[in-house]
Amino acid sequence: MTRSPETTRFILVAGTTETAQRDGLSAAGADPELLSTTPGADAELLTYGRPVRTDTVPVSPSGCPTPALVTRAVRELLGFDVAVVDGGLTEPTGAPTVSVGAGVGRDIGDQDPVPTAYGAFEAARQYGRKLPTDELWLAETIPGGTTTALGVLRALGEEAMVSSSLPENPVERKERVVSEGLAASSMQPGDAAGEPKRAVRRMGDPVLATLAGLTTGAVETDTAVTLAGGTQQLAVAALVRHGGYEGSLGLATTSYVADDGTADLRASAGELDLDLTVTDPGFDASDHVAMERFVAGEAKEGVGMGGALALADRAGLGMAEVRDRFAAVYDDLVDPEPTPGELA
Amino acid sequence: MTRSPETTRFILVAGTTETAQRDGLSAAGADPELLSTTPGADAELLTYGRPVRTDTVPVSPSGCPTPALVTRAVRELLGFDVAVVDGGLTEPTGAPTVSVGAGVGRDIGDQDPVPTAYGAFEAARQYGRKLPTDELWLAETIPGGTTTALGVLRALGEEAMVSSSLPENPVERKERVVSEGLAASSMQPGDAAGEPKRAVRRMGDPVLATLAGLTTGAVETDTAVTLAGGTQQLAVAALVRHGGYEGSLGLATTSYVADDGTADLRASAGELDLDLTVTDPGFDASDHVAMERFVAGEAKEGVGMGGALALADRAGLGMAEVRDRFAAVYDDLVDPEPTPGELA
Repeated sequence: MTRSPETTRFILVAGTTETAQRDGLSAAGADPELLSTTPGADAELLTYGRPVRTDTVPVSPSGCPTPALVTRAVRELLGFDVAVVDGGLTEPTGAPTVSVGAGVGRDIGDQDPVPTAYGAFEAARQYGRKLPTDELWLAETIPGGTTTALGVLRALGEEAMVSSSLPENPVERKERVVSEGLAASSMQPGDAAGEPKRAVRRMGDPVLATLAGLTTGAVETDTAVTLAGGTQQLAVAALVRHGGYEGSLGLATTSYVADDGTADLRASAGELDLDLTVTDPGFDASDHVAMERFVAGEAKEGVGMGGALALADRAGLGMAEVRDRFAAVYDDLVDPEPTPGELA
Repeated sequence: MTRSPETTRFILVAGTTETAQRDGLSAAGADPELLSTTPGADAELLTYGRPVRTDTVPVSPSGCPTPALVTRAVRELLGFDVAVVDGGLTEPTGAPTVSVGAGVGRDIGDQDPVPTAYGAFEAARQYGRKLPTDELWLAETIPGGTTTALGVLRALGEEAMVSSSLPENPVERKERVVSEGLAASSMQPGDAAGEPKRAVRRMGDPVLATLAGLTTGAVETDTAVTLAGGTQQLAVAALVRHGGYEGSLGLATTSYVADDGTADLRASAGELDLDLTVTDPGFDASDHVAMERFVAGEAKEGVGMGGALALADRAGLGMAEVRDRFAAVYDDLVDPEPTPGELA
């Protein structure tokens, strides 16, 4: 009877893990302040187009902005509906958030880093069951999240490797942190196979727990789910598969993650039977500083960037239009007086 | 540079006051369960078009639905952007909310019913200052809110009378509750003139504190504000005027409040120098049960209904279109198998 205008819903889960405070794991970690403020800032940028309670737009020392600006640019062009779920923020964000009881994630070297995992999973599952929408696109923002994603994959006994927001993926460092975490939890790789909530509580982060719950609830009520992101969403998919769901599940990511040789996303997505969509925003066609950093391998993905690009592509928007809007958003927020030529 | 698609923003402040638990003050009070669940349900209805964490659509025993369904109907037609601020909810809602630290409001017969008023006012003010928007439409949902609005008006020394969600406004009962409250706070009428935060802390509710803070912050940064609602918004306007703001301020309400003889809204709006917009949805042209209850004097206003109608009118939508959509929303949610003719 009632036609809902919101048949496509985009949900960002924003949270934290203290694992990010370890050296060399995250691009956001180059500035310790950014570790705790980035998820809230990303939520505000996606919701409002500018920071509200935070003061700064997250930009790496080399000038690579948060991929939130790409997702925001697409949202300005397409107008899709957004909700933010608090997946363990350190402080309240100015963006409206749904609470599922997720607390801040502790370091995975702790014995019980995500004590709120079970509760957040179940509350998110109920929320996902009840959300009136035809299709759900799920995104994440959590500095250090690829390391906890690796922790979850190993706890489940999955072989997949994760990507990185850094140009050089610190694979060995991540494996070492995960080994430490498994030892602290008295676990061997694969010990939590078939036990997704245990895996994410002992070796994951609150954002992964929330996303896995959301996905599980949504598919239980036949809502189509696309996990928008890179290898962190691969860990979410693994959690959902280990929970027993064998139906259809999408993964939409950027070409930067898909082409990352240190993590074979395509093969891993195949093993988890995911419908993979890879979108190339064509940033190499631009000499804008923000796009150059992505081409150089920074950031790669995040805040649902790959999903937003897929939505743009599906709607028939050209990537040139997405690039122009992204450049305009960046220049407006980060560099209010661009030098001539930067907008090209 | 960046064109924001959200130049008009609609914000709903949802909260509670235990004052509503007194007999005979609120239409929602006919069912004690509705007192605590109505604000969260309204937030979900406005955001998603249906209940998510709540189970029921608030409907009075006689069949009058929450005005949230009218505002939602207009939103489905116009697509304006909505955010919900937690103005003291008793339990988390499934709608995304911004936190300003507002706690549940206690009975105004208590000595200090809104201890969070100062903090919520200031946090809402900061939020209102930073919101990137050209115009802000502010709405409320709080059962029992007209009695606390009267409390604030008397504490400020304003003579205005408030309206009611009941067909028969229990004016004497409200005045008695307010007198009790003033006595409990050792105050005389007018004792808090020029002290809006004190007035709302001692005699108001957390929604009024939040709305007054939001308005104050927004006008400080030259954002145009329209208070969408009835005599509760009159109390918000009084708080803002007593805080020293003398500039332009809008009030958009329904004809049901404006025509309520027990509260002379037009005169009071004039005294507070408000730009008043009154919109008649023409529900008397329909024999739909939901509209008949409004025509009979129930509900009258709430959840920004008058503001939504004003936005519809400004956009050139006819009220017949609004009525049709409202009927469709109601029939879909409340009465899934309408009898023939009800949609007319």
